[in-house]
Amino acid sequence: MAERAIIVCAGEVTREDLAAAAPGSGDLVIGADRGYQRAMELGLVPQIILGDFDSAARPDREDIEVYPAIKDDTDSVLAVNRALEEGCREIVLLGALGGRLDHTVANLQTLLYIRDRGARGWLLGGGTAVTAIRNESLELPRMEGYLSVFAADGPCRGVTLEGLFYPLREAELTSSYPLGVSNQFTAPTARVTVAQGALYVMTVPFDHQ
Amino acid sequence: MAERAIIVCAGEVTREDLAAAAPGSGDLVIGADRGYQRAMELGLVPQIILGDFDSAARPDREDIEVYPAIKDDTDSVLAVNRALEEGCREIVLLGALGGRLDHTVANLQTLLYIRDRGARGWLLGGGTAVTAIRNESLELPRMEGYLSVFAADGPCRGVTLEGLFYPLREAELTSSYPLGVSNQFTAPTARVTVAQGALYVMTVPFDHQ
Repeated sequence: MAERAIIVCAGEVTREDLAAAAPGSGDLVIGADRGYQRAMELGLVPQIILGDFDSAARPDREDIEVYPAIKDDTDSVLAVNRALEEGCREIVLLGALGGRLDHTVANLQTLLYIRDRGARGWLLGGGTAVTAIRNESLELPRMEGYLSVFAADGPCRGVTLEGLFYPLREAELTSSYPLGVSNQFTAPTARVTVAQGALYVMTVPFDHQ
Repeated sequence: MAERAIIVCAGEVTREDLAAAAPGSGDLVIGADRGYQRAMELGLVPQIILGDFDSAARPDREDIEVYPAIKDDTDSVLAVNRALEEGCREIVLLGALGGRLDHTVANLQTLLYIRDRGARGWLLGGGTAVTAIRNESLELPRMEGYLSVFAADGPCRGVTLEGLFYPLREAELTSSYPLGVSNQFTAPTARVTVAQGALYVMTVPFDHQ
């Protein structure tokens, strides 16, 4: 049973993105719709391929899981559900950022979906990394970039930021004022805590284009 | 007193974006930091220029409003506050989408900031348009694209979607499941209602790159 899933979605995926995900032989690789092509191009062979294939060519394999095009779940959510069924505790999505904004926001919300099912999700793309936390702390190693936190599901209480240029201590954060954007590391490790509520935690490299 | 403000932010702004904003002679144009250069390049002369100018050249005008680089407000929020002070009831932000994801999410949350101060905000870029609504209805004319709604500030109750392929009737929408992504118009006008809570309402053209 794989501990970690790498889901390749339909958006752009570079070699740098793949390197950031650092796939290992024990990982479960899932191609979500057109994402299976991205995976193959990068030399990753998905163990699971799923989607509605309404706009992408259906791969020539017997074991494809085809879903109806008219459905409530996005391809990302379908793939996440399969990863959760397989017991994965960490789920990395590639090709889920940087394309259509509606897809990006849907994938951000999918991070909360993953979190609320007891696993940790990450969106990686173009050097940007995002996860969602709820009622917990997260430590992140210093990187050459900005760290931002955003209220992800209504008001957050007890938000504490440590090891960052703009610290917070037991603060409230709301979805209608982006107080937590563009912070910077001042220590080898930053620690983000939210006592009550959910946060997106995001790092963006200084040299982002 | 201007009814409407066009705020030009530091991100990319195309002629198509400017045309979508349809600036009129009565509009208040604000250049937010590096955005004043974008405005000038497009032939828009800002009446107000503000920012910290920590990374952009400071324009050669006497009436620039310079803020400290170390501050809580983003340049977008500073500009929005000025537009609200000037009495604007509609605030369009250009150059606020499509760059760094932390900036994009901060600007999405700024739409709620605007809404909660009694005005209507819009982010326009690359054919994508986003606004935020709270405890209200919004009508949108049919366009050649997808319409999506996302819970923007915790759970939403009484979400009703009319004139769309996937209708909803008095539904609940949460931030942890993107049920409202990629809907499509089936009528000349779509109507989005949220009885209790806040939604992002977003349109993305079919031919989005």
